[in-house]
Amino acid sequence: MRGTGAPGGNARAKEDICWGRNPVTQLLLDEPSRCLKVIASKSMQRAALDQIAGLCRESGVPLQKVEPGAMNSLADGTNHQGVIAIIAPRPMLNITDALSLLPKPPAKALVVLADHVLDPHNLGAMIRSAEAASASFLAMPLRRNSLPTGTVVKTSAGASLRLPLAAVGNVANAVKEFQAAGLWAIALDSAGKRTIYEDKLPARTLLVVGSESKGIGNATASACDETLGIPIAGKTGSLNASVALAVAMFEWFRLNCATV
Amino acid sequence: MRGTGAPGGNARAKEDICWGRNPVTQLLLDEPSRCLKVIASKSMQRAALDQIAGLCRESGVPLQKVEPGAMNSLADGTNHQGVIAIIAPRPMLNITDALSLLPKPPAKALVVLADHVLDPHNLGAMIRSAEAASASFLAMPLRRNSLPTGTVVKTSAGASLRLPLAAVGNVANAVKEFQAAGLWAIALDSAGKRTIYEDKLPARTLLVVGSESKGIGNATASACDETLGIPIAGKTGSLNASVALAVAMFEWFRLNCATV
Repeated sequence: MRGTGAPGGNARAKEDICWGRNPVTQLLLDEPSRCLKVIASKSMQRAALDQIAGLCRESGVPLQKVEPGAMNSLADGTNHQGVIAIIAPRPMLNITDALSLLPKPPAKALVVLADHVLDPHNLGAMIRSAEAASASFLAMPLRRNSLPTGTVVKTSAGASLRLPLAAVGNVANAVKEFQAAGLWAIALDSAGKRTIYEDKLPARTLLVVGSESKGIGNATASACDETLGIPIAGKTGSLNASVALAVAMFEWFRLNCATV
Repeated sequence: MRGTGAPGGNARAKEDICWGRNPVTQLLLDEPSRCLKVIASKSMQRAALDQIAGLCRESGVPLQKVEPGAMNSLADGTNHQGVIAIIAPRPMLNITDALSLLPKPPAKALVVLADHVLDPHNLGAMIRSAEAASASFLAMPLRRNSLPTGTVVKTSAGASLRLPLAAVGNVANAVKEFQAAGLWAIALDSAGKRTIYEDKLPARTLLVVGSESKGIGNATASACDETLGIPIAGKTGSLNASVALAVAMFEWFRLNCATV
């Protein structure tokens, strides 16, 4: 009944999508936690668009409206009827369910929050390293963030099918919810005046990491308890965002978990 | 006079190449340290092939002989005359020149040796992180290793144009030369019974890293002073090779350089 698949043609269409009005509506009703984003044509019939928009709002799924021509290109030859949904290989947790996975204080805990990481290779690499560093889960917004689709599964070497992933709305608000759960929120940013080595990463840590180009948003950085950097040599170089996260996570792991 | 460029079409042809008998001969005579590999057609005239092969041998440049059909595909429409050379964006150092860059003992020093790293993205990521961790240079074999061409420049975010790169012949022999220069040779491998945290990385360290699939060769691992791993959580996960190297390099940096 539902049109799904991974047609070729362009970057978006290669991801797992679901197309058609009834299939997308049913997906939003049955498994909203697997629906990462809905894309609808601006020329879609008004009543049908309103219904889809209402379901997206209720389940917190981003809705993007595009020109009819763009729609055809995205849907790559499918009979899309004006709407497609990008689907996740497995359901995303909401923040409440994700927090229930955290060991209770004072047990050690590591959580990663991606603040609008746009490169799927970086997101995949972050998920792979986060699993290896014993993070409880990785959280991310679904708007202006790489979506955890098939590309991310591949670049994470499958870790994105194992490590729990959580979808958050506003990233700065999510920081506050994590703090309320007893995590010390650290914005990882080369602009930090102090380093991850000067201020020992505590037993319960939230590491917030931004995109390579824009870093962490101001509101998010302000919500964090502190901003820490990784000292590097030279003046011209910088670390890849996923490498910086890995170095910080394994410093946490060394201090809190590794037998040294 | 010399045919050079970056024609599109397939992965190999996108790299910087030089084609034609005279251009390749001249490159091998003038700038052998910029010549990463020569590829010649098996149907090439015998005398010309012998001359090219002799020059490759003298300058330590790998020569690969391929079927005429493969040649056309690699050279992507150029008038290749049966031979192309893969050229580096900048000259590779030989091991003697590379060692002359090392601070004299007992000054701290970090060197990275890539043991047949095949993925150019991994090689580029390693070079970027090595520069940031203050490595003196990164060494690699030119046979059965990703070549430091334009793809690597891009994935290293330009670091491969700044960090000195050295070409070595036999990797296990290179380990011995580095040891003679006062470096403690550590094979970084998840098979290591001890960890990089248990045995503090010394002030003068050579880190040897292998490919993700095959790890470090037996002869190379045997030549090293010890094999150390990075402890990780879970049983299913593993670290990307460039991430493992970055974690180890920044542990060295933390112990030896960072103000903590």
